[in-house]
Amino acid sequence: MSSSFDPSKYPELKNLLCSIDKIPDVSDIRPETVTEKVIECNSNCPDPRLKTLLDNLTIHLHDFIRENNVTTEEWMATVHYLTDVGKKCTGSRQEFVLLSDIFGIAALVNSINNPSVNGSTVATLLGPFYTGEFHDIEEGGTIAPAEGPGEPLLVTGRILNTSGEPIPNAAIETWEADAEGLYDVQYSTYSEPDHRGRFRSNDKGEYSFRCIVPIAYAIPDDGPVGDLLIKLGRHPYRPAHLHMKIEAPPVYETLVTALYPRGDLFSKSDAVFGVKTPLIVDFELIESDEEAKAKGFKKGPFRRLDYDFTLATKEESAQAKEKLRKSMAKKA
Amino acid sequence: MSSSFDPSKYPELKNLLCSIDKIPDVSDIRPETVTEKVIECNSNCPDPRLKTLLDNLTIHLHDFIRENNVTTEEWMATVHYLTDVGKKCTGSRQEFVLLSDIFGIAALVNSINNPSVNGSTVATLLGPFYTGEFHDIEEGGTIAPAEGPGEPLLVTGRILNTSGEPIPNAAIETWEADAEGLYDVQYSTYSEPDHRGRFRSNDKGEYSFRCIVPIAYAIPDDGPVGDLLIKLGRHPYRPAHLHMKIEAPPVYETLVTALYPRGDLFSKSDAVFGVKTPLIVDFELIESDEEAKAKGFKKGPFRRLDYDFTLATKEESAQAKEKLRKSMAKKA
Repeated sequence: MSSSFDPSKYPELKNLLCSIDKIPDVSDIRPETVTEKVIECNSNCPDPRLKTLLDNLTIHLHDFIRENNVTTEEWMATVHYLTDVGKKCTGSRQEFVLLSDIFGIAALVNSINNPSVNGSTVATLLGPFYTGEFHDIEEGGTIAPAEGPGEPLLVTGRILNTSGEPIPNAAIETWEADAEGLYDVQYSTYSEPDHRGRFRSNDKGEYSFRCIVPIAYAIPDDGPVGDLLIKLGRHPYRPAHLHMKIEAPPVYETLVTALYPRGDLFSKSDAVFGVKTPLIVDFELIESDEEAKAKGFKKGPFRRLDYDFTLATKEESAQAKEKLRKSMAKKA
Repeated sequence: MSSSFDPSKYPELKNLLCSIDKIPDVSDIRPETVTEKVIECNSNCPDPRLKTLLDNLTIHLHDFIRENNVTTEEWMATVHYLTDVGKKCTGSRQEFVLLSDIFGIAALVNSINNPSVNGSTVATLLGPFYTGEFHDIEEGGTIAPAEGPGEPLLVTGRILNTSGEPIPNAAIETWEADAEGLYDVQYSTYSEPDHRGRFRSNDKGEYSFRCIVPIAYAIPDDGPVGDLLIKLGRHPYRPAHLHMKIEAPPVYETLVTALYPRGDLFSKSDAVFGVKTPLIVDFELIESDEEAKAKGFKKGPFRRLDYDFTLATKEESAQAKEKLRKSMAKKA
């Protein structure tokens, strides 16, 4: 029998291809046997974690197909939908992250991997607009253009450990949408970071920066994920929030979180399931021009938020994750 | 509270956005509550089938995350993998179909939706190389270039119903890889269909066409799906096969199937789980120049295959699907 078979093309599979008769027989699959056949077929996988994950994913996806009698047309529509999601992805647009977000998968993965412990600040979603690009700013500096649109906000506070001790020199990153509800990278004219700043806590663990009061916005909804939300009868809005990422290695677990202004129309119906009540905050209104000028603003009024972030140690965090893992295994 | 909220942008969501306080509260999700929150959130979906499918998919994907304690890094790797799969898709390359194929999902969907009934020919995968583009050929005509490379093959037979009666004027499409194991669309120089033909059964239900003996080939493996197969310790080969699609509306169910030459190295380890034993066939070797010329070949030898395809009626097929559905529901 002729073929285009060329074993030399696959050095990793040399042993497999030299003993093809020993590969599990996967012919004649039936609805009730296909799952075990696929799993058998993965039995030469050299990476046990990859095999565990993909075998289990296969079981769930096959069960999904069987339980719902998914039709050929429905499955092809799914394949085409995923293709459209892929087409929408660019360097600055991650449609698969959005898809994962609206199904609560990102929120679930986040909650499993970042349990709060001993009073540490609750974590929430990194989101698709974290770019890793920031302007370095001084203590009390601003991440938003001076006198740009948006309501001025001063954020101050401390970085603490779970014993309430200050953590000096913690690396803090913060980012937010602008006064139009758009992140810098959503503009076709994007050239450098805007409404994004990086700085460190001082030797008392204190931090201080200026930005604008964040506003609610719709997640990018001009693609397949936006279309699906409409079909599901769901809105695409996220309540206003200010992202924070705080790192203090090697002792402390990195904290990725966000602060949500109280009273937002979408506080309870965040399109991506990110809101945690302990992260809802109040802004104080300060009218005084004098105080505004002292804080670096041109004039009053401005809003002020004081918020302390509490970081768990890596050890505390690992223990909390292990405890959560065991409690989930018990329920499963 | 300020926002970029613009309800007029979403006419379909008018009722929803006018009564946001009635949307289920999805804040404070926890690993054990997120699934029901997402499902609650979909409760305004106007399409019951879409809601059923996506709710059930959410349950399975969340269970997958919980059962395996998927880490943030693993989930992001998954998102990036899907993004790479999306990037590999073009008009002539469907990487998501390949992904669905290697997990046996396409084979499962196919087997659920096309059960054999009353002796009808077993169905198998359409595959990612069906283009819907064909040359119309005469009875006994060839789909492969005359005197091109590859072993000449004459395929003859009848299209029958499950009572053994001939079905005249059935629309038959056939396609195969060429002597290099590549489909026409895999060549960057592709301009028109090659090794693809369309014709009809005659008034006795007979058909006849010439092609080449198909050879085994690797599925396109220069992308994320090929990489994953290597990581899983699996080879990318499909045994040789000749695709057939036979339509005789409005009475008969369309049959999508393929014939597999006996003795192929990969008969039992098809990378995409498509082989069904009843579709494995033998080719007769005919040496006579005279007979070859009579069949339209320049000279002998050539191979010959005689195969009858049996189509179920739409009614038979619907009953078989319903029976299968009930038996699967009983097991679930």
